[in-house]
Order: sequence, then C-alpha cells, then structure tokens
Amino acid sequence: MERILNNRTPNFIGKPVKVSGWVDTRRDHGKIVFLDLLDRSGILQIVCSPDLVREIHNEDVLEVEGNVQERPANMVNPNLETGKVEVSAEKVKILAKAQTLPFEIKDLKLTLPTLLDFRPLTLRNEKIRAIFKIQETILETFQKTLKDLGFTEFKSPTIVPANAEGGAAVFHIDYYNYDAYLAQSPQLYKQIMVGVFERVFTITSVYRAEPSVTTRHLSEYISLDAEMGFISSWEELLDTCEIVITNIFSQIQKENSAELKILGIELPKINEKIPRIKIREAQEKIFERTKRDNRKEPDLEPDDEKEICDFAKEKYNSDLIFITHYPTKKRPFYTHPDPEDKDYTLSFDLLCRGLEIVTGGQRINDYETLVSNIKKWGNNPGDFQYYLQAFKYGMPPEGGFALGLERITKQILGLENIREASIFPRDMERIDERLSVLQPKEKSKDAKKKTK
Amino acid sequence: MERILNNRTPNFIGKPVKVSGWVDTRRDHGKIVFLDLLDRSGILQIVCSPDLVREIHNEDVLEVEGNVQERPANMVNPNLETGKVEVSAEKVKILAKAQTLPFEIKDLKLTLPTLLDFRPLTLRNEKIRAIFKIQETILETFQKTLKDLGFTEFKSPTIVPANAEGGAAVFHIDYYNYDAYLAQSPQLYKQIMVGVFERVFTITSVYRAEPSVTTRHLSEYISLDAEMGFISSWEELLDTCEIVITNIFSQIQKENSAELKILGIELPKINEKIPRIKIREAQEKIFERTKRDNRKEPDLEPDDEKEICDFAKEKYNSDLIFITHYPTKKRPFYTHPDPEDKDYTLSFDLLCRGLEIVTGGQRINDYETLVSNIKKWGNNPGDFQYYLQAFKYGMPPEGGFALGLERITKQILGLENIREASIFPRDMERIDERLSVLQPKEKSKDAKKKTK
Repeated sequence: MERILNNRTPNFIGKPVKVSGWVDTRRDHGKIVFLDLLDRSGILQIVCSPDLVREIHNEDVLEVEGNVQERPANMVNPNLETGKVEVSAEKVKILAKAQTLPFEIKDLKLTLPTLLDFRPLTLRNEKIRAIFKIQETILETFQKTLKDLGFTEFKSPTIVPANAEGGAAVFHIDYYNYDAYLAQSPQLYKQIMVGVFERVFTITSVYRAEPSVTTRHLSEYISLDAEMGFISSWEELLDTCEIVITNIFSQIQKENSAELKILGIELPKINEKIPRIKIREAQEKIFERTKRDNRKEPDLEPDDEKEICDFAKEKYNSDLIFITHYPTKKRPFYTHPDPEDKDYTLSFDLLCRGLEIVTGGQRINDYETLVSNIKKWGNNPGDFQYYLQAFKYGMPPEGGFALGLERITKQILGLENIREASIFPRDMERIDERLSVLQPKEKSKDAKKKTK
Repeated sequence: MERILNNRTPNFIGKPVKVSGWVDTRRDHGKIVFLDLLDRSGILQIVCSPDLVREIHNEDVLEVEGNVQERPANMVNPNLETGKVEVSAEKVKILAKAQTLPFEIKDLKLTLPTLLDFRPLTLRNEKIRAIFKIQETILETFQKTLKDLGFTEFKSPTIVPANAEGGAAVFHIDYYNYDAYLAQSPQLYKQIMVGVFERVFTITSVYRAEPSVTTRHLSEYISLDAEMGFISSWEELLDTCEIVITNIFSQIQKENSAELKILGIELPKINEKIPRIKIREAQEKIFERTKRDNRKEPDLEPDDEKEICDFAKEKYNSDLIFITHYPTKKRPFYTHPDPEDKDYTLSFDLLCRGLEIVTGGQRINDYETLVSNIKKWGNNPGDFQYYLQAFKYGMPPEGGFALGLERITKQILGLENIREASIFPRDMERIDERLSVLQPKEKSKDAKKKTK
C-alpha cells in the first residue's frame, strides 16, 4: 500500500490506508490509546489498542496501517482538517525511535538561549514552525511580485574584494594568499545588473561583524534586494516598495491563516497608502509630541522610530510609515542628492511598528558625479573601477531598496528578538552552539595557529 | 507622457509614444539615421534626422518621443517582436552618455580573462544575457517543481562552526574572537529541517577553497539543495531528481526559445527515463569499450565520465545518465549503505554530457548507526551534537540531492568554462578583478597585518 498524507484521509472513509509521521501526543484511555500523528500536511488521530503501541512516545516516527472511520459526533474536532475522521490502527511500524525528550516540544517554557541550543528539536514546535512557514511566504511573494513587474532574478556573490560601502564592520576571510571579505550588501552588484536587465532583484546572505548583541541585529541575515532603472521619479521606488509590502501582507493573510491563528497575531495595518514624511518633519513632530529635541540629528534613534510610528498609527491608522530625505553626509557615496536641497538625499526608510524594515533610495547614475562623490567620501575611485564601468558606459536614472528578511518577519509577527526569526541565527556568541562552549578561548587560539 | 516598453509599440500604430533604452546599434543612411534602441523587453527601431542624434553612439541611454509607424513591407524584420513597426523620433533626450567603448559589445572577440575584467560591460552582450535568463529559469523551475511536490523552502546559513563534512578545502573566517568557516554545503542543515517540515529545499551560496584552477570549479557557487523524509525506497530520490531535471529542460524550452535561438544551441536529450547504472557496471562498460581498466577505482575520472555518457547516448539516446552505488569509503559518513552490499552506498551522481551536475543519496537516519559512523570516519560525535539532535529525537528514512547551478547551466548550454555560467565568478585568481592586480603580494601582506 502506498502512503497517503494525513489530510487526504477524509476521502478514504471506510477504506484501508497507510499513513506516517511523528507522534505529536499520546493519550491513554484504559483499553484504548489515541495518538496524534503529525506529517507535513497536519495532524491525524490514530486509535489503537495499547498492545500495538506499548513503548511508543512523543517524536517516535511511525508508519500506521489501518481503516479510516468517521469519529462519533461528540468527538469531532472542528479545528482540525482531519477532525471528522480517525484511523483505527491495525499495524504500527516504528520507522525511528526517539530518545526521551529533554522537554515537552508542545509546550516550550525555555529561555531563548536554551531554545537555540536545542534548535533542531525546538524548530518542531508548532508556533516556531508557523514563523518559518510565514517567512517562506515573504520570500516567495517578494520574488513573485517583482517577477510580475518585469524584474530579473540574479545571484549576487558574497565574497567581495573590499569593504566598499564603508560603515558597518565586515568579516575578513583568508582567501588563498589574499584578503577578502563577506559582503555587507549586494548593492554594487545589483546596480551593475541594472545596466544589463534594467530591473533586477536578488536574495542573498549578507554579513555584519558588529561586536554587539542587540535584539535587532544578526551577524548573517538574508537581504531581499531590488534595483530598477528608467525611473521617472524617485517616488516610483517608494511606490514599488509599497506594492511589494502590500502583496506580502495580503499573501500571508491568504496562505497562512492557519499559522496566524496558531501564533494568535494580527498583521500590521496598511491604510490604503503608507504615509510619507521627511525626516526633518518627523523630528519636528517628535519634538512637538515629546519635547525631545533631536531636530538636528542625522537619523532617528530607536525611541524616535517608535514615537513616529505611534504618530502614524494615531493620525493615519497605519502601522507603517516612510521616512524620507535623510541628510547627505550620513548616507553612502552613491545616494542621489535632492535637487531641491543638496544637504538631503532622495532616500527612504520604511518603519513598521517602531523598527526599520526597508531602506532604499535613488542612486547617482552620472559617472562624473559618482567619481567625484567617491573622492568626497574619502575613497579612491581606483578601488571602484570595476563597479564604475557600469556607469562609464551608460546607466539610466535608477534606484532600489532592500528588505531584511528576518527584520520584516520579526516586525510582522511581533517577535521580541530577531533570533526568533532566523532558523539558525549567528551572532557574536553563537554559531549553532554557543561559541564559548564550542571553542573555549585557549582552544580557539590553538586552532587559529593551526589554520595559519 | 508615460514611457511604454518597446514591445508594446505595435499596439500604438499611428500614435505618439515615449520609449527609452540603450543605443544598441546606429546606422547612418545620409539624411536619415536608424537607431536600435534596447530596453528590457527587446529591440525597437528608431528613425530620425541626423540633427536629432548628432553625437549619439552605442550604449548612450536615451528617452525618445515620437510616432509609431508601420515599416514599409520590404523593411519588415520577422526576427524582431517589433519588426513591423518603427518610431519616428521627434524628441530625443540623453538620459546618460556613454564613454567611447573599449570594444564592440555586439561582437565580443575577447579572451575569457578580458571578458571577466570588463564583466559589467560584457554582461550586456546579447549571448551573455541569454545565459543568465536561462539560469533564472533553472532557479525558478527548481523552486516551483519542489513547491508543487510539497517541499518547504528555507534559508540555510553560510557561516559554519567547523568543516563538518570533511573532504573539500574550506575558507577560514575571523569570527570575532573565534574561528569559523564558509559552508561547503547546506547538507547538515537540510537534514535537520527534514525533522521539521519533512520535505525541504534551499538555494544558497557554498564555497570551495581548492587551490587549483579548472574549467569545472568555482570558489563560490550556488547550490540547489533538496531533502525529503518518509521515502519508501531510495529510488524515490532518483525519481524526484528526474522530475526536477525534466521540468527544468521543458521549462527552458517553453520560456527561453528566444535565448536558445540566440545561443544557437539544443538542449540535452532525455529519452523518457534517464538510464541508471551502478558504478561497477559503468566501469565494466568503460573497460569493454576502451580497455581502460579503472574497475577498482572508487570514482569516475573525467575521461570515464565522458565515456559513460557516450555509451548512454549511443545505447539510450540520452545525454544524461545516473551512476549509482558509489563505494562506502569514498562517500561522507552520513551516506546510507546498500543493505545488500555494505561496501557500496545508496548514492548517485547524475552526469550530463560528460560532467556531474547532481549528487545525492539516502542518508543514515538511525541515531546509533550515525554516531558509530562518525567515529569510523575518524570524527568526534561531540563535534556533531547539534546536528545529531535531529536524529536522536526521531528522523524518518530520508535522503536528497544537490544541483550546482553554474554546473547545470554550463552543461545544458555547452559552455566551455564554468566561469561563463557565473555572473561574477570567484576563483583563486579573481574576485571581480584579478587579485594580482588588486593586491600585489607585498600590499596584501601589509593589509593582512592591519586587519589582525
């Protein structure tokens, strides 16, 4: 007999089937035992005699043959796709035995570090699975929306020759006899690709070597990057970003209603259009509301980000707000200045519930201006000659934006720590296991010597 | 007026339009100039008076306003989507000026190193663009096929704590005060994820620090990895792999007929089923055919791979062939032995036109066997305790496979060097630019000191 998925059993009432999965729960009722069997399609109730499942416990992997029968009316579970049926087991085969569990997977009462120490096991928890099913929808909707808008997907490299953009700290790699680094963004590559396909996007790992632990930063994360040429105005970038975000929200609503229910959360609200406000106006509003005077700061502090999101929520009933026109000197060399006031740029961040989830803007596409800006920013144009080819030989007006996959997952789902939104989070204290356990300082130094 | 894409102009005959793009070709005919204007939708012919485009040359970026008109019958170009129309220009605006080109992009007669030195420019060549449009189809078809088969996509990390699998050389990263490495495959992570979602796939950068230059290897490449639980037999893995490959070929045929024509190539042939042959039988065949006696070798040499592909072509009219049952001692510790002969494994490679493009197999899912194999392979199970959790707590029979994106692109398109199938290839001599130019040895050593 061929295995069928649990969710197909309602089509087999009165018939024999073979199903398989993990034991999610076991309930003993004297002469009868109920097992909840979990496979990728969901839960199915198995009824059997105690003899058949004497030593079976949670997480054991079973193959069960039996007959599908309707449950008595008072036993129907309306919350389950298979809630009207059950399988009366005749044969139970153990495909793999689980050792005694260190904790109940169903009901995790662990601190985050312990949750992560046992990640291969805790990922099986229903709520944690729900997070990553929703993350998959974010990934796919980003791709699909941009494909429909005429974008071409390309794969960006992660090993780079130099820390081109400046700013964030980078990881150094021993690259044969040379120095190389892990990319902090695919920025320069996606701009080059605008010269090839006009509209492009890429999904890639990026890296930040910041020596600090916060609830908002990871050492490795997934960047969803889009870049488009022939923009008629820089607002086209915000419009495109808005389409992507709106589609992500509506697609989650459509595909992940079960997961949203499991997590017990509501998606952030977008009220028709996402409001757009210049940073200086935002700071003015914050000053009015709190008397905190950050009106000359080049960026919003975490408290200011929260405050301006509160403002957007009150005034526009929106959990999202675009902050635009960041000061020129705080943005990278390629950022396009505002023609109306060159101290500011055609740049934007999108805040969601108090945290930045997207950053973007128009870029300088004129070769001479770009070269002169590289110098102004204290860099050597010679170090950028590869990238500059794209501009030397004809680049249309262009710009783009980048979403942090884990950031947006965290903000949409209201998670406290970004590590909860990364399947295998990396930070300065952890790569899978805690580094201090894996490599006590002494051992680490020895290992380093050996690799040199 | 809003810009329309070139390929929409046939719907606007007799009407004014605005189009934009790069100048692909300029042809002067006395009182009239023809420009081929290229945008992401294709080529459009512009006719104008010489005055309007006096200093315009190839790769200049233009915005053109004018009227769409039918071409005279003898001027129709049947090879062009817009071949029946042209735009008679009234206004030409230069969006960006290109400097004098170092070579003709249309007709590249450059060696591969020079092609790569000028990658931002040479990527604009029609044939090179075609390669990466087809690569995009491979990516998307891999995703879509597996999604339809109930697989969940997840993102695998690229920073790993140790060189777990052994074998290939790895890149070392300075990770805060610790040692870390670039992943050579997402193998252990995708296996963990089978315990979570049963069927998973991931698309991720992987790294090989092999200090050699060949036409088949890159230092960074994209791995398309699938892994599935509850397999009824290991042949299910080959069947699934076959579905993925068959779909990739048919999807390219459907979506990329234009690109295939540009490249002037035919896709490899699959004759219903891909033939499957054990390595020992393959070696016997090769011995019969060539008198080369490699019948005791654990793997096929490049010449043997070519020979067995010739055999498959002659006997089965197939450009692909599965080689199965590689010897146990040459495969990683997690490879499932063949129950009928433990010196061999339930593993396979898929060869296409003389080169391996997929590798896969069933894995050991029993915890105790896995631990004992880790020891037998000379490793310490303590170093694998994170990964082993997935098996300690119930893992169904499972297996999977991995495609190299650049490898499959190279073989499908008959490219000579794998670097042609990577947008921004990395090898021991190059990261974008040649490393010897970027970092002369002396300079490199200095830089290294500084980063320590």
